[in-house]
Amino acid sequence: MTVVTTGPVAGLLAALGDAVVTDSDTMIAYTRDQSMLSPSGHPIAVVRARTTDHVVRTLKTAHRYGIPVVTRGAGTGLAGGANAIDGCIVLSTEKLDRILTIDEQSRTATVEPGVINGDLAAAAAERGLWYVPDPGSRAVSTIGGNLATNAGGACCAKYGVTGDHVARIKAVLADGRIIHTGATTRKNVAGLNLTQLLVGSEGTLAVIVEATMRLRRPPARTATVVAAFAEPVRAVDAVMAIQAVADPSLVELMDRTTISAVNDMTRMGLDQTAGALLLIQCDGDAAPAEAQRSADACRAAAATELYMSTDPAEGDALMQARSVALTALERRGSTLLDDLAVPVPRLPHMLDAITRIADHHRLLIGTFGHAADGNLHPTIVFDAADPDAAERAHQAFDEMVAQCLALGGSITGEHGVGDLKRRYLEPMIGSVERSLMAEVKAAFDPTGILNPGRAI
Amino acid sequence: MTVVTTGPVAGLLAALGDAVVTDSDTMIAYTRDQSMLSPSGHPIAVVRARTTDHVVRTLKTAHRYGIPVVTRGAGTGLAGGANAIDGCIVLSTEKLDRILTIDEQSRTATVEPGVINGDLAAAAAERGLWYVPDPGSRAVSTIGGNLATNAGGACCAKYGVTGDHVARIKAVLADGRIIHTGATTRKNVAGLNLTQLLVGSEGTLAVIVEATMRLRRPPARTATVVAAFAEPVRAVDAVMAIQAVADPSLVELMDRTTISAVNDMTRMGLDQTAGALLLIQCDGDAAPAEAQRSADACRAAAATELYMSTDPAEGDALMQARSVALTALERRGSTLLDDLAVPVPRLPHMLDAITRIADHHRLLIGTFGHAADGNLHPTIVFDAADPDAAERAHQAFDEMVAQCLALGGSITGEHGVGDLKRRYLEPMIGSVERSLMAEVKAAFDPTGILNPGRAI
Ligand SMILES: Cc1cc2nc3c(=O)[nH]c(=O)nc-3n(C[C@H](O)[C@H](O)[C@H](O)COP(=O)(O)OP(=O)(O)OC[C@H]3O[C@@H](n4cnc5c(N)ncnc54)[C@H](O)[C@@H]3O)c2cc1C
Ligand SMILES: Cc1cc2nc3c(=O)[nH]c(=O)nc-3n(C[C@H](O)[C@H](O)[C@H](O)COP(=O)(O)OP(=O)(O)OC[C@H]3O[C@@H](n4cnc5c(N)ncnc54)[C@H](O)[C@@H]3O)c2cc1C
Repeated sequence: MTVVTTGPVAGLLAALGDAVVTDSDTMIAYTRDQSMLSPSGHPIAVVRARTTDHVVRTLKTAHRYGIPVVTRGAGTGLAGGANAIDGCIVLSTEKLDRILTIDEQSRTATVEPGVINGDLAAAAAERGLWYVPDPGSRAVSTIGGNLATNAGGACCAKYGVTGDHVARIKAVLADGRIIHTGATTRKNVAGLNLTQLLVGSEGTLAVIVEATMRLRRPPARTATVVAAFAEPVRAVDAVMAIQAVADPSLVELMDRTTISAVNDMTRMGLDQTAGALLLIQCDGDAAPAEAQRSADACRAAAATELYMSTDPAEGDALMQARSVALTALERRGSTLLDDLAVPVPRLPHMLDAITRIADHHRLLIGTFGHAADGNLHPTIVFDAADPDAAERAHQAFDEMVAQCLALGGSITGEHGVGDLKRRYLEPMIGSVERSLMAEVKAAFDPTGILNPGRAI
Repeated sequence: MTVVTTGPVAGLLAALGDAVVTDSDTMIAYTRDQSMLSPSGHPIAVVRARTTDHVVRTLKTAHRYGIPVVTRGAGTGLAGGANAIDGCIVLSTEKLDRILTIDEQSRTATVEPGVINGDLAAAAAERGLWYVPDPGSRAVSTIGGNLATNAGGACCAKYGVTGDHVARIKAVLADGRIIHTGATTRKNVAGLNLTQLLVGSEGTLAVIVEATMRLRRPPARTATVVAAFAEPVRAVDAVMAIQAVADPSLVELMDRTTISAVNDMTRMGLDQTAGALLLIQCDGDAAPAEAQRSADACRAAAATELYMSTDPAEGDALMQARSVALTALERRGSTLLDDLAVPVPRLPHMLDAITRIADHHRLLIGTFGHAADGNLHPTIVFDAADPDAAERAHQAFDEMVAQCLALGGSITGEHGVGDLKRRYLEPMIGSVERSLMAEVKAAFDPTGILNPGRAI
């Protein structure tokens, strides 16, 4: 038996004791996120931090030895951003999971990063308050991960993404120093906006150890509209017409392939003849009136079926169709889930391009997404056991991203760059911009140990 | 006659011709902003850029010679951020004033930085759209300046500040390279958020030469409530009670001193016995209902007078009371205008502290501000000709900032750090954070020529 007495692992063990995991059976659970396309390596250790001090000690040790650190929340990411790198330390924040305070008067919650999104939402609801950001993964993903990816969700159509709801962040720099960014006050323009720099930085700048999130008054009522259209282009017309008469909290789109997959799984009886379905929700005092105007806009855009409900329970039931979309498509084969955003008026072009690419490569692609934001999740369904199909799937993935860029879009609306989208980043943002981002990273992490090679 | 043929001024003249101003009579108009407290120096030249290329050439020349560059919009800033530095080039963007496109479908406007806020709002209104940010200076300040200071306004209570309405920025780096940040798409998480880093950076990171701003659908209706209270603490109770039942677009507060100054100037007949006045506006379909609930909340918080109107013209007239507050106070003497933000529940403590400080220093301090955001503008009125009064005014200013920090507040809610608030920055944000900001600035501007010593 060899007892390790020097080197980074010994350093971690000395500094952190039982917070350190080195046996490979346990470590394996901390090596990958939910991205199917991204490679992952073998960590030398996993640290399950329970305190800020654990994070500080981990980073100091990593910094001393020049070891890469991959921070990890719940590992639900879809871009490989939390995947282990060979020889890295995986720093898990999942056990930093305390809700520290909920201040009803200033309507803020201060939480550790491992708090699950849904747990924060539930705790806020108990006080009659609303934690708004609602990624599909809200039952399992963490606030730290949500901030580090700037997670979206359905209702960001009206309320914005995770970064729009953060007041302050406490984080640990690569060398172990602690910073506080932002202010609890609603308005603050003192110095550079480090808060929004950390938001979406995917673990490359600092490790988030605490965040103060803003809460809202929950809406008094909601109203839901479901509209079917013969063609996707009509659905997009409807989206634009709706936005001219209402501020829906969400506008979700499903294409024909997705509708049929959802029907097969749920027997919901969605209109199979439709080329596209919109699910629209309005909230607030004027929800019924806004929903009515939205429905009228759909009718004017030649909706073939229309259904409206002001019953919240029924609204939730209708939203199920969209929530299960990915699961339903996954039943048809292996999936490659993409995350592209285009300006709303360009959605028809993007949807056309997806259809063309699917046909050309003889692939099934089901598309659903957040139509009000132009954010689509085209999902390639293929037989992973067939190397030719896998090859075509990857080509189709590349071509969709290229089309999106040609339409003035973004290579990622909400899932992040991680490892998956790295090669598309420079074509989108430009080389000067990318090197500027690298310089900014160097300001935070001069030796480049935090999630190296990811995000930027 | 000496003809300058080498050196930075000659370089500017050769590169920019008649865009360069060197006669001191013209230059004088470009040396100061509206901050009374900040020193200003003598520029070697003023460049009135008419094209992006002018900006590029100016920065290349400045970079070559290591000359500081102070970028300037309309010079309405209240923190000395646009004040000339001895030996600097003042780079004015006021003539970069074209609205390039307004895209009704994606609801965005792409503008040059010298476009006046009110001109953009008017152009948007012509298309039935709404440019939301409404600083008090909107008739004169520029979009570039608004972005560089992250300007607030009244209706940011509901709609956020300038930075919440920007999609993309085109900017020129200190060495003359051009960058584009952000995306036209509503959602984008590709790489670090350089857009929000430029927002509020007060000319220290790059010169903004173009911006794509988001527009909204204008609200169908507005409703206004005016409520008087015997004591400021009751008014703050009302603010919190209102926020539990409505999302007002603005909630403005005026204290007794301000009420009386406004009455004297306008003969509006505001309630002189009141300790504080709230002006509340709700907008959208449910405006009348929200205003009614707001009024009820005021009544429950012991409002001594209440008035409500759903007539937009009358609403505008009522808002006049608040718009003229500063002008009215200026009639009473020289003024030092402050800009502090505290969490809303701490507003009573801040208001008490202001009264104590005013009494202690035998000064008149009129306080008004954006109550929903906890953002106050205590305005010290004094006789500038009396050195003792001036000394007491400056001491009072320092003490108010210190009190604000003690209450967990921000040293600037919307006016920026500029030169005025520099000495308070590190006490607020901390030394590690400040040096990190300096490192980030160095990533953009390694030789430190852009507005050196300002903001960070
Ligand atoms: C079924 C399903 C539905 C989903 N729906 C959505 C959706 O609607 N919208 C959406 O945006 N995403 C969605 N996602 C993707 C994913 O849930 C989000 O990206 C989420 O924010 C990741 O959180 P996490 O805790 O799992 O983070 P992880 O996957 O563990 O990490 C994600 C990234 O954040 C970094 N990170 C994590 N914690 C910290 C920290 N404390 N400090 C610094 N960096 C940190 C990691 O290094 C990594 O780069 C979905 C995923 C699944 C599986
Ligand atoms: C009567 C009055 C009312 C006001 N009301 C408000 C209010 O309600 N809310 C509020 O927030 N402010 C208010 N202000 C302050 C001021 O109007 C704002 O700070 C405004 O945003 C400044 O715009 P400007 O064009 O005048 O910029 P300037 O004063 O010229 O410059 C301000 C800062 O921005 C930088 N800058 C300007 N243009 C650029 C550019 N193109 N690229 C990079 N940096 C640039 C300058 O270097 C400087 O640091 C008010 C001022 C007055 C006089």
